[in-house]
Amino acid sequence: MPPHDTIRAVEWKDNHLILLDQRKLPHAEHYLQLYSAEDTAEAIRNMVVRGAPAIGIAAAYGLLMAARKAFKQYPHDWRARLQPDIEVLAAARPTAVNLHWALQRMLKALDEHDADPIHTLMAVAQQIHQADIEANHRMALLGSELIKPTHGVLTHCNTGSLATGGYGTALGVIRAAYGEGKIEQVYADETRPWWQGSRLTAWELMRDKIPTQLICEGAAAHLMKLGKISWVIVGADRVAANGDVANKIGTYSLAVLARFHGVRFMVVAPTSTIDLETVSGEQIPLEERSADEILNVNQQRIAAPQVGAWNPAFDVTPGKLVDILVTEKGIVLRPDTEKLSTLMQS
Amino acid sequence: MPPHDTIRAVEWKDNHLILLDQRKLPHAEHYLQLYSAEDTAEAIRNMVVRGAPAIGIAAAYGLLMAARKAFKQYPHDWRARLQPDIEVLAAARPTAVNLHWALQRMLKALDEHDADPIHTLMAVAQQIHQADIEANHRMALLGSELIKPTHGVLTHCNTGSLATGGYGTALGVIRAAYGEGKIEQVYADETRPWWQGSRLTAWELMRDKIPTQLICEGAAAHLMKLGKISWVIVGADRVAANGDVANKIGTYSLAVLARFHGVRFMVVAPTSTIDLETVSGEQIPLEERSADEILNVNQQRIAAPQVGAWNPAFDVTPGKLVDILVTEKGIVLRPDTEKLSTLMQS
Repeated sequence: MPPHDTIRAVEWKDNHLILLDQRKLPHAEHYLQLYSAEDTAEAIRNMVVRGAPAIGIAAAYGLLMAARKAFKQYPHDWRARLQPDIEVLAAARPTAVNLHWALQRMLKALDEHDADPIHTLMAVAQQIHQADIEANHRMALLGSELIKPTHGVLTHCNTGSLATGGYGTALGVIRAAYGEGKIEQVYADETRPWWQGSRLTAWELMRDKIPTQLICEGAAAHLMKLGKISWVIVGADRVAANGDVANKIGTYSLAVLARFHGVRFMVVAPTSTIDLETVSGEQIPLEERSADEILNVNQQRIAAPQVGAWNPAFDVTPGKLVDILVTEKGIVLRPDTEKLSTLMQS
Repeated sequence: MPPHDTIRAVEWKDNHLILLDQRKLPHAEHYLQLYSAEDTAEAIRNMVVRGAPAIGIAAAYGLLMAARKAFKQYPHDWRARLQPDIEVLAAARPTAVNLHWALQRMLKALDEHDADPIHTLMAVAQQIHQADIEANHRMALLGSELIKPTHGVLTHCNTGSLATGGYGTALGVIRAAYGEGKIEQVYADETRPWWQGSRLTAWELMRDKIPTQLICEGAAAHLMKLGKISWVIVGADRVAANGDVANKIGTYSLAVLARFHGVRFMVVAPTSTIDLETVSGEQIPLEERSADEILNVNQQRIAAPQVGAWNPAFDVTPGKLVDILVTEKGIVLRPDTEKLSTLMQS
């Protein structure tokens, strides 16, 4: 692997799926071995694996394992028997579209090449996986080209090797720009309530020797006001046809603050994250997670007894607040319906 | 006490200072008994007591205890012997101006009435304490009058009985407006890294039976976008002569987001928080605290090994982003140098 890129969170090996358990990071580097679609769906639901592209890749392998089992147990009606597993995978998490995109791509291949279905599914799953890594490298080049030498950039959540097939979306751009000597300091939001910044982004950037400072989300505006960053660089869980971006809660806040301060706002997402069937951000289903994630830390209660919490896991940033969308097919300035339609047809 | 107001965090009893230890809330309601200025300064530094008005009151009692001790030990040059204790109290925390205001008021009284110094200091300390509670009730009336019946308001940090002599600044307004049936739901930022929202605001609002939901700071913009709140209501640690407001990190972010969403932004602060000697926000010293507050929770490491953190405890909101400043002397729309000068002379 190139420098600043040593981590792989999703692997297919000896006919099963291996996932780095992201709930245990940074304290333990524990890998789960998965052999079924049910276990894969549960791993997605429980955030053993997270990040839109990584979820898509895991779901593809989950479907492959489901098909293999159905084919063996029910050689005559295996395709029909597969349906419950497909549904369980599709329902694992609602917001990231890559999951649906990967399942649909697998099923389409199955319909087109049904002579040797397991071989077909294996090839497509591995292609989805490999293509994601390649897309990340391509986006890293395109995104990094836009960055002039600067003191700092700010990122949110985790969009790195842990969130993708490898290298990362927003963190891929940051890895590349850092490798080219254009960034001195990465600032990472700690990303409450699940601490993706503190636990995951910090872990992977430290591991790859990229200087990083955590900040609380509340400090981002102050950071911008002091002139410490020139870019906010984030990923996406789903980009609607009009350029609206669903991403980890807190992203929309950064977009508004960036526009106010003249800081530029970059979204880095492969075209597998763009969903032309969703007209605008209002149609994107936004997962709300348990209040417990806010009220407790490490199974210890932080909050006062009885109080409740509102825990939306995602928000939507209007396309007009996105200065640049970087995809593996090219960059789009201020994405809108027309520009995204053109991009997807290219 | 009236309804929705049952908590006192600072008390003077039997010639010593009693502080509710806010580091232990909400899990334990533990009161510390303090008998010296050194212990009072340490309690301020370590955030046993926090909140600009409460710090001022505690410092006044701290100075009283120092004077009593000096007067007893050094009857002839007790005033000179007091100086180190004054300095230790003044240096306990840099941003909140109430601390300096209270010390100066005590020393001025001492200069003016030196016949019976301990009696004088006792009277002034209790007057500072009592006047703060009265100011809070007055501000609560003035602020609540501005609020039309609404679903929700958002507050940040803790500005309640725990942060003041009693009742609270921003939480005083919220207490009053809730009591008048004008608010259905209070949203409170959890307020990383010290969890003033989760631990303190939630504790006191639950205790006073005011319906409250915690949110992560990153969710505030999404909350505003969904139209769930019509006001952001916060306190202040120092208001500069031009209306710039230093307050808990994250406040400035809320002010920018509120303006963007057409949500109104109210700062509630007694005139003891207004510092005409500080021309603008740039001159306010902003405390930075240890990175450990971000990297650890309850002495457990959250963040990845080796990563650093930037932990500014305060930020500055420009006066032009403040729709209303509520003081006990009256309200000020979009505070600026002229309006604050007029207010302070009134």
